[in-house]
Amino acid sequence: MSSDMTLYWGSGSIPCWRVMICLVEKELSDYNSKLVSFEKKEQKSDEIMKINPRGQVPAFKHGNVVVNESMAICLYLENTFKNQGTQLLPDDPSQQALVLQRFMETQNIMDKAKALFFHRFRTKQEDWDQVYIGEKIKALAEELPLWENYLSQYGEGSFITGKDFTLADASLVPALAYLMRMKLPMKERFPCLASYYERVSDRPSVQSGWPPHWKDTPGYDYLKDV
Amino acid sequence: MSSDMTLYWGSGSIPCWRVMICLVEKELSDYNSKLVSFEKKEQKSDEIMKINPRGQVPAFKHGNVVVNESMAICLYLENTFKNQGTQLLPDDPSQQALVLQRFMETQNIMDKAKALFFHRFRTKQEDWDQVYIGEKIKALAEELPLWENYLSQYGEGSFITGKDFTLADASLVPALAYLMRMKLPMKERFPCLASYYERVSDRPSVQSGWPPHWKDTPGYDYLKDV
Repeated sequence: MSSDMTLYWGSGSIPCWRVMICLVEKELSDYNSKLVSFEKKEQKSDEIMKINPRGQVPAFKHGNVVVNESMAICLYLENTFKNQGTQLLPDDPSQQALVLQRFMETQNIMDKAKALFFHRFRTKQEDWDQVYIGEKIKALAEELPLWENYLSQYGEGSFITGKDFTLADASLVPALAYLMRMKLPMKERFPCLASYYERVSDRPSVQSGWPPHWKDTPGYDYLKDV
Repeated sequence: MSSDMTLYWGSGSIPCWRVMICLVEKELSDYNSKLVSFEKKEQKSDEIMKINPRGQVPAFKHGNVVVNESMAICLYLENTFKNQGTQLLPDDPSQQALVLQRFMETQNIMDKAKALFFHRFRTKQEDWDQVYIGEKIKALAEELPLWENYLSQYGEGSFITGKDFTLADASLVPALAYLMRMKLPMKERFPCLASYYERVSDRPSVQSGWPPHWKDTPGYDYLKDV
């Protein structure tokens, strides 16, 4: 039987990657995977607009259920397939609180990194606003030690909320990959994060969503001075 | 017995308001409510930095459990007090998916409205970037019809996902209040949203978090042309 799940995704979209990780962790890897070209603006196609009227990916359908916000899709998959694959949200209330907190908290990394990326990417180099760029680099330089500190509380081999891989990791790893793509000197500046990243990026679920176009393009050196 | 819950919040913070609504809906209104002055930068006090190292509100503690991201607090309260007060996340999987989707989706309104607000609020009027402002107004003008359309599918007296008040409403109402504070002509442009807003803003939980300083200051006319 073919899957009744369809995910429309774009290469390099961190929200899409987050969802792909959850799908594989929940043993749902036979979903219909539809890669959308941002270059050709395929996210604005009628097929996607019918599911997601914002014309964005991820756009996700499970039978008649449509969920498009990546965090909502992750929560939906975990709640709907609670006893299948990796348990991504623990039952214990205080551990669950921690996972929800770290899961949502990854947005702080992405908000700061995206602001920097889009300014440099969309603006001609001669128009770069160095004050703005400086502020965003500073914001990231203040953000990342928090995560280094979270990890340093656990032993080697741990995940971001302790011994198990959870929703929080599914959201954190793509964010870290995004920073690495922008040449963050993670190993030098944040050794716990670097060791975590190296280990977790080998996970099949993480590999399953690795942006195809990242494999043969070099990235950007926007974060080399963080 | 006094409550073992403490919420630090700031007047006018939409994320804080969202949490306050959930607290009252879950019959937890005896929480320790600590109003923080943004003017005096009290969110950077040692007391708060100990709970939330970003020095932001909401900062929330329940016994030894700390949760600071507003969406995570709302989910935590619902999961932990599932059978108490208003059920904010339905059991039915497809209805639950809808609530999670709309809940997270409210961020689209806030992201667009905040970008506009902060640019105009933090920049001298002579430096306002009219192209940027135009883009943000256009983004909101495209965003809001989606919500008008969601509501128009249900009968008068409904909430944003149907007959029950949920997490999605707890997050939507403060966002709409924020738009009204910026003089969105909601009644003229979005009649279903306006009628919903008028009705839901009377709810005690919503009233409990109404920003005190909004009561005696006029707001801004940033959205009068949407």
